[in-house]
Amino acid sequence: MTPPRFTFTIHATDGRARLGEIAMRRGTIRTPAFMPVGTAATVKAMKPADVRASGADILLGNTYHLMLRPSAERVARLGGLHGFMGWDRPILTDSGGYQVMSLAELTSRSEEGVAFKSHLDGSRHLISPERSMEIQRLLGSDIVMAFDELVPTTSTREVQAAAMERSMRWAQRSRDAFDAGGDHAAGAALFGIQQGALDEGLRKASADALKAIEFDGYAVGGLAVGEGQEAMFGVLDYAPGQLDAARPRYLMGVGKPDDIVGAVERGIDMFDCVLPTRSGRTGQAFTRAGPINIRNARFAEDQGPLDPACPCPVCATWSRAYLHHLVRAGEILGAMLMTEHNLWFYQTLMADLRAAIGAGTLRDFASAFRATYYAERPATAGVSKG
Amino acid sequence: MTPPRFTFTIHATDGRARLGEIAMRRGTIRTPAFMPVGTAATVKAMKPADVRASGADILLGNTYHLMLRPSAERVARLGGLHGFMGWDRPILTDSGGYQVMSLAELTSRSEEGVAFKSHLDGSRHLISPERSMEIQRLLGSDIVMAFDELVPTTSTREVQAAAMERSMRWAQRSRDAFDAGGDHAAGAALFGIQQGALDEGLRKASADALKAIEFDGYAVGGLAVGEGQEAMFGVLDYAPGQLDAARPRYLMGVGKPDDIVGAVERGIDMFDCVLPTRSGRTGQAFTRAGPINIRNARFAEDQGPLDPACPCPVCATWSRAYLHHLVRAGEILGAMLMTEHNLWFYQTLMADLRAAIGAGTLRDFASAFRATYYAERPATAGVSKG
Repeated sequence: MTPPRFTFTIHATDGRARLGEIAMRRGTIRTPAFMPVGTAATVKAMKPADVRASGADILLGNTYHLMLRPSAERVARLGGLHGFMGWDRPILTDSGGYQVMSLAELTSRSEEGVAFKSHLDGSRHLISPERSMEIQRLLGSDIVMAFDELVPTTSTREVQAAAMERSMRWAQRSRDAFDAGGDHAAGAALFGIQQGALDEGLRKASADALKAIEFDGYAVGGLAVGEGQEAMFGVLDYAPGQLDAARPRYLMGVGKPDDIVGAVERGIDMFDCVLPTRSGRTGQAFTRAGPINIRNARFAEDQGPLDPACPCPVCATWSRAYLHHLVRAGEILGAMLMTEHNLWFYQTLMADLRAAIGAGTLRDFASAFRATYYAERPATAGVSKG
Repeated sequence: MTPPRFTFTIHATDGRARLGEIAMRRGTIRTPAFMPVGTAATVKAMKPADVRASGADILLGNTYHLMLRPSAERVARLGGLHGFMGWDRPILTDSGGYQVMSLAELTSRSEEGVAFKSHLDGSRHLISPERSMEIQRLLGSDIVMAFDELVPTTSTREVQAAAMERSMRWAQRSRDAFDAGGDHAAGAALFGIQQGALDEGLRKASADALKAIEFDGYAVGGLAVGEGQEAMFGVLDYAPGQLDAARPRYLMGVGKPDDIVGAVERGIDMFDCVLPTRSGRTGQAFTRAGPINIRNARFAEDQGPLDPACPCPVCATWSRAYLHHLVRAGEILGAMLMTEHNLWFYQTLMADLRAAIGAGTLRDFASAFRATYYAERPATAGVSKG
């Protein structure tokens, strides 16, 4: 049986925002979509069934972490990432490029690829476009990301340009290696990644290079690395429009709830971020009235739910007082429940965004969201008029 | 509406073992019963619904931990322990006596009670029989334990005798304070605790004193404190018979699966122990073929379940290889899944013991259990003929 071809259908648009659906092997992804991060073959502190219940259609797995432990070859011998971790829906894997540069000790960096020492045990590894495709194939990834080169956003334009151009050569090598691996015929998809930092001209050149190679979807890379929301939105005012409008656009590593609302308004279809899970483990809960730190003493006898507007099982069952107690006591259940709530918060926000796009009311929804979310803090800009 | 009176019905016996049922407010407890420990208002790394799904009819809460954080008064203001933690079935609370002596820095110890400094913040507290009853009432406990005094099993007989005699005076004060609090009328139950270390005469005197006071159930206290299984079984060869046969007999803090099998053969009806939960967090899984440490390298590519004989959701879904990966990587999900499996192991063992007593085949079941469980280790004694 031929697996379903990767297709992206746009059901409605509202301004630059799109309501859509990706159909592919292992399931359908409603867009705009938020992908919880399952770094080491687990969405931290969550069972897969509870991740699914929160509304997630797809997870992200980290090539860098998995290649080091338990290793891509071991995951392949054990039947692939889906069976290993007990998640039977789509998984997107990153290329390893971002994390090798942020976590590992680099030993060399060349046209061939990146050599590094593991942050776990000092063992030596190489990732090249070809090796990244091989690892992602061994893991059984459904959406494979091209391998790219990242440089700090503070680098000179020359350095940015060189890194973008190398990334485009690596995108072609990723495409070639992916196709040689037969993954596409088996229903896996390959996404290219636009680079070019905060420079519109470099972004345009990168988008054109990627479109010439042709990918199933296109990511906006190199953002959410410290440039701030205003600068990021500045790039998102033009970058999505440079990419193929018929394909999903994925903003990697984003972000805070207000980042997501603004990026959806600017035409982004897919997101991933560790924020809901990582924040959950440190006591931060997202609410429509802004984030709260549950460790704060004012919650010690607060019998209300984390967020009165939230439909999640945590808010239906437990009080802020109980969560305050668990987190203060360092209880694992505190990390579990805070994470679960945060994932529901993100998925409920995505569902509301999809509903607003479908109803043509995104501008009103986004304004109301910001008015509530920023109630006690200075507002930041919505979508620009440009 | 009058809550149901605490009743204990024995449906069948097999040797000294009893198959029974405790009916009380908030539910029915099938005996022999294993009570998971919910130290700080949480069975560590478990949601209450998953604890219930494993077969638990009742949890244990720790007075010492809860009085320090979040405090009994706060739990009471928040509506009691059941609503606070989201568990609507019976909860047994210990008296605080054991843990104040094992965890806190004692500042005085007298006929009045025990004064101590908190191990959390050095704050000063007192537990007396009256204060222990008050705390357990504030928590909303269903089965309240009398406050007793513990001394090391290595103490002289004189010290043991004095501690037992003081514990019997405290049992009377516990009874009086409990009755004055009106708990009994509201359907809560009070258990007395037999002391006397490893001395049959002291155990007899303690049992007689408790029976004269009258309790809803009787615990065998002061065991599982390092004396070893043989010495413990030696006491259990006579101690349960000294207690009221019409009332539940509870062996506090026990124990390993083989301890439980031997204690059930000797007439014990209730157990609690941190072993399944604590072991789960350190990578130990219980199986009918004995405990295994999942961190062991031989499990790295083992695609089988933790225990082929186990009906739990963990064994149905994930491999030893995956759990090995999670535990090695320090993932919270590893602690969650190992704990869940271990709780199912304990509850499945209790269900099998109950079925064997009902069928009159306990001796065969216990022999078969030990033959498998000890397959690679020296066997220890079964129930004595005495």
